[in-house]
Amino acid sequence: MNVPASPAPATKKGEETRERILAAATDLIHAQGFKETGLSDILAASGVPKGSFYHYFQSKEDLGRELLVRYRIEARAFLEREAFPPTGEVIPQFVRFFEESAREQTEGGCKAGCLLGNLAAEITNIHEDLRREVAQCFVELGEVFADALERGQRAGELAGDFDPAAAATFLVSVMEGSILLAKARREPGAFAGVQASLIRYFDSLRNPARPVDAPTLGGVA
Amino acid sequence: MNVPASPAPATKKGEETRERILAAATDLIHAQGFKETGLSDILAASGVPKGSFYHYFQSKEDLGRELLVRYRIEARAFLEREAFPPTGEVIPQFVRFFEESAREQTEGGCKAGCLLGNLAAEITNIHEDLRREVAQCFVELGEVFADALERGQRAGELAGDFDPAAAATFLVSVMEGSILLAKARREPGAFAGVQASLIRYFDSLRNPARPVDAPTLGGVA
Repeated sequence: MNVPASPAPATKKGEETRERILAAATDLIHAQGFKETGLSDILAASGVPKGSFYHYFQSKEDLGRELLVRYRIEARAFLEREAFPPTGEVIPQFVRFFEESAREQTEGGCKAGCLLGNLAAEITNIHEDLRREVAQCFVELGEVFADALERGQRAGELAGDFDPAAAATFLVSVMEGSILLAKARREPGAFAGVQASLIRYFDSLRNPARPVDAPTLGGVA
Repeated sequence: MNVPASPAPATKKGEETRERILAAATDLIHAQGFKETGLSDILAASGVPKGSFYHYFQSKEDLGRELLVRYRIEARAFLEREAFPPTGEVIPQFVRFFEESAREQTEGGCKAGCLLGNLAAEITNIHEDLRREVAQCFVELGEVFADALERGQRAGELAGDFDPAAAATFLVSVMEGSILLAKARREPGAFAGVQASLIRYFDSLRNPARPVDAPTLGGVA
């Protein structure tokens, strides 16, 4: 199905209403899934009447697509600016990023999981439009990781004998898999093991020609 | 909810019918999810009348719990016997296991995903009984991996300076995450990158005191 993109609201108030719907829907869908989230839940959470909803979105699927586009753009901007800024060493950035992601899940009782991972499991066989958007989110997350790794290679922090894109896909898998595991077990124990193993993996990516400053992150695993 | 376990069927025919229901339900739930799979789908696929179903299972949730118990026991037996037998080197066993898992997903068009991963994302916030079973499946998969790694340490194939349980959790995460990624992207590209990175990770687990026979799996990544 090739639905044309929803028209942009003409006014600032319209833009705010649209944003309120998207934010409420993102939270609800993250917490309870796409199918479980009814249009009435979204309307109640955003305080928008039904007739007004259809002014902004053609359907729940249309809304789902839009919120994934929004999520992708915002997540990428955040990651490039905050988590992987083009200054500083890359391995500590990754270690912090994974710690932060584990902390976030732990604070929520490991219940929510990752919005993208949840949707990948739930809707990729049902809504082809949404599947494409989820896939694109993963592609761009991998690109951010690969860019960071490549920067580490150029700076001599990392060895040159690995493919940044391959390592990036691996790291996205580690992230999604560990969040899924913690969600199933409803406790954060999985993150400690994953973190220790990640540090060992990152040590294997270090440029062996470059002396490591003590104290190093390595040796912990 | 603490439902007592379903009674074991008294006859061989009863056992066969129960098994037929479990097998059909496993396939359907794997392909389309727990919520999407109606009782009527399961009855149609197994050729069992509705009245007869309730002779074996109290509810769809009861059936779900039973099929996860069955899956856990059968998967563990298969893994211990076929994938990680107590002879031979451990790293090639893991490499083959991950290759085999990627091949399986690729043959199915990367559509099905992992039964456990799908259920972890779909039902862990809704059915507490099923969540516990999914969690236990992941725990036992981790135990099989940890046992294999420990064996490699005892045999001197692997270094002694890492915790097998932590590495096992990491490897379960890699497996689940990469299957989820391939499912979202609906193509197996992710597996190649993961495989290359895994080989590098496994190289970091090798016992450095032990010379590696050429040609080695390492250096590919």
